Amino acid sequence: MEASFPSAPGSLAGIRVIDLTRVISGPFCTQMLGDHGADVIKVESPGKGDVVRGQGNMVNGESWYFAQFNRNKRSLTLDLRSDEGKQILNRLLEGADVLVENFRPGVLAKMGLDDDTLRERFPRLVVGRINGFGATGPYRDRPAYDFIAQAMSGFMGVNGPADGEPMRAAPPISDMVASQNLAFGICAALVRRAATGQGEIVETALTNGLIAMLGYLAAEYFATDQIPARTGNDHPMLYPYGLFKASDGEVAIAPSNDTMVSRLLKALDLLYLLDDPRFADNAQRMANREALREILNGVIEQRRVDDWIEHLNRAGVPCGRVHDLRETFADPQVQAQQMRLEIDQGDAGRVPVTGFPVKMREAPPALYHRVPRLGEHTRELLGELGMTPSELDVLLARGVI
Amino acid sequence: MEASFPSAPGSLAGIRVIDLTRVISGPFCTQMLGDHGADVIKVESPGKGDVVRGQGNMVNGESWYFAQFNRNKRSLTLDLRSDEGKQILNRLLEGADVLVENFRPGVLAKMGLDDDTLRERFPRLVVGRINGFGATGPYRDRPAYDFIAQAMSGFMGVNGPADGEPMRAAPPISDMVASQNLAFGICAALVRRAATGQGEIVETALTNGLIAMLGYLAAEYFATDQIPARTGNDHPMLYPYGLFKASDGEVAIAPSNDTMVSRLLKALDLLYLLDDPRFADNAQRMANREALREILNGVIEQRRVDDWIEHLNRAGVPCGRVHDLRETFADPQVQAQQMRLEIDQGDAGRVPVTGFPVKMREAPPALYHRVPRLGEHTRELLGELGMTPSELDVLLARGVI
Repeated sequence: MEASFPSAPGSLAGIRVIDLTRVISGPFCTQMLGDHGADVIKVESPGKGDVVRGQGNMVNGESWYFAQFNRNKRSLTLDLRSDEGKQILNRLLEGADVLVENFRPGVLAKMGLDDDTLRERFPRLVVGRINGFGATGPYRDRPAYDFIAQAMSGFMGVNGPADGEPMRAAPPISDMVASQNLAFGICAALVRRAATGQGEIVETALTNGLIAMLGYLAAEYFATDQIPARTGNDHPMLYPYGLFKASDGEVAIAPSNDTMVSRLLKALDLLYLLDDPRFADNAQRMANREALREILNGVIEQRRVDDWIEHLNRAGVPCGRVHDLRETFADPQVQAQQMRLEIDQGDAGRVPVTGFPVKMREAPPALYHRVPRLGEHTRELLGELGMTPSELDVLLARGVI
Repeated sequence: MEASFPSAPGSLAGIRVIDLTRVISGPFCTQMLGDHGADVIKVESPGKGDVVRGQGNMVNGESWYFAQFNRNKRSLTLDLRSDEGKQILNRLLEGADVLVENFRPGVLAKMGLDDDTLRERFPRLVVGRINGFGATGPYRDRPAYDFIAQAMSGFMGVNGPADGEPMRAAPPISDMVASQNLAFGICAALVRRAATGQGEIVETALTNGLIAMLGYLAAEYFATDQIPARTGNDHPMLYPYGLFKASDGEVAIAPSNDTMVSRLLKALDLLYLLDDPRFADNAQRMANREALREILNGVIEQRRVDDWIEHLNRAGVPCGRVHDLRETFADPQVQAQQMRLEIDQGDAGRVPVTGFPVKMREAPPALYHRVPRLGEHTRELLGELGMTPSELDVLLARGVI
């Protein structure tokens, strides 16, 4: 699926973002802003840049892991520890709408940009930040990583097989969720700024994002004072529901009420089971789950996954194949939704990345900028600040840019 | 932790949201908008309302599951299948900024509100919608549920133990992620509206949100054409990293580079292992993972989780306890971050809910409205449209409200 590079502006056209973030949580957030038209300027350390540039699978000298999080940005190198670097950052902020950072709490303040200074010097600026545990509280200074946040938020504890250990989600879910929360918060603050002219400090934490996702599992704990049991792929309150074994793989089937259970049993030619007292209602089915699972798998194993998907969907039963990533990206629906894009990286070839999850009718997200090389836009951007080529040569020689 | 009910406006103060959503994905999105000050009007079917009102743990006649997703809203009952109900919806939309719905594709159009009509009749309205697979493509009309989206997005396939089956995340992660994406997209569209006066149609799908979260796992697949292996709690590229067994439970330890590995081994009095060729660098440690795991657990099992947390944090090694939900909500950091709130539901008592993951300094999120009873605000809201009490009595008698 080839992506177009349209010139039509996205929803955030005209919003300039100074992006001091690195690794995953911040870059995913600023990429969301860039996808929707914001002008994102990724500030990186001279000579090194975001550590992810050298990580993961490298193809033609470029990290495809980095590409997943850094399209639709321009790259500017700047040594933020130097006085000149700090001065240039301040000049950039004068023309910016948003600053995003994911340093540990206090690092930006040490650069002279504590919150009070930020609010006073740049009253219209929206500052967005992500940290591990939040900027107040006893763990504020602890190093935080996705795996730790999954563990400490309680998220890991509710996942996994009933007879196994707590299980993380494989994608760095706390980083990704925090990114989404911050992108939302930044835009909400921009809505307020449009009405009041006032900037804002917006903050989210890896742990807090996952805690807010506990949803009915938190409700169950609050209401009963009991820790929700891990149930693997089984639903804690419904059966049949989960993974079943077809002749050539697994099929996910998720009837959420009695009507759908009837549809499922009818489609399997097992409707008579509802006359069996062991399976007559959901409570009985939960009590006799293993017996029913065996009966269902005995029928389902006789046909292929694709046959069941077609048959059960026609019967109105929610179901689907458990896709591996090849199947996901080969799926005609995923292709119709353009959830795999390709970025033309010039000499480095075409790089596939995941697509836009938020669609817009009038001002759709788009690929505006390919993944930038380290410092690719330094001269262009500092030129806009009025710096001359010879001034920039001096800064370059001194390692400031 | 008691929550305050401040009158200070949040970031989205002045934004009125007509909320036609039910169950999880839509209500979590509109709750995010309400938490930040939007005036959210939850439209529910007369006499029944959102099906979640009767699900999950009920305390004093109220569902605490429903409470997790429906604070900061007002409830209005309206039969959207009736002509009068449709007329009233149209009048509500005239005074609204945002409409949110999570019907299957096409249902709103059948109510007379297809996209062209919405854009033409309400040019400033931002319409937000969530569906299962997207509004175009071969699966657009399929019923979708979280479990199916986890399976078909590829998300489930990368999770789980190396020797086990694909494993879902226990919270309905596709619903929650889609909610966050939509909240972001709605606010981005409001930013554009502030600049252009134009409304928008914003859409997200359960599957697409999870695909966009595959991150480096997608990059690995794209770069190698190999399906990423399931690795349970182990990191696919780093060791040591994961869960370790202390004397009274599990501890998550996540050193992400050689410096941190050295710190960890030093803290365990095992620094000499780096002189062992089996463990000298990360590649060797990955190749001899089980041998190293045994040595590490042999030391770690000698002390309690709390001892290790303190000791390793002091040594600068990212680590944390695998919290169950009791430990999560008892944690002093979680309390400092107010990630457990209590809503005063009057006669129904105080209901705990998870807190706000997005913090704001000037216009913070707050509890503005308790969880509404079904139709609690119908008369108040329709009165604002100029309807008289006797007109409302007629509508009530006819089941329209």
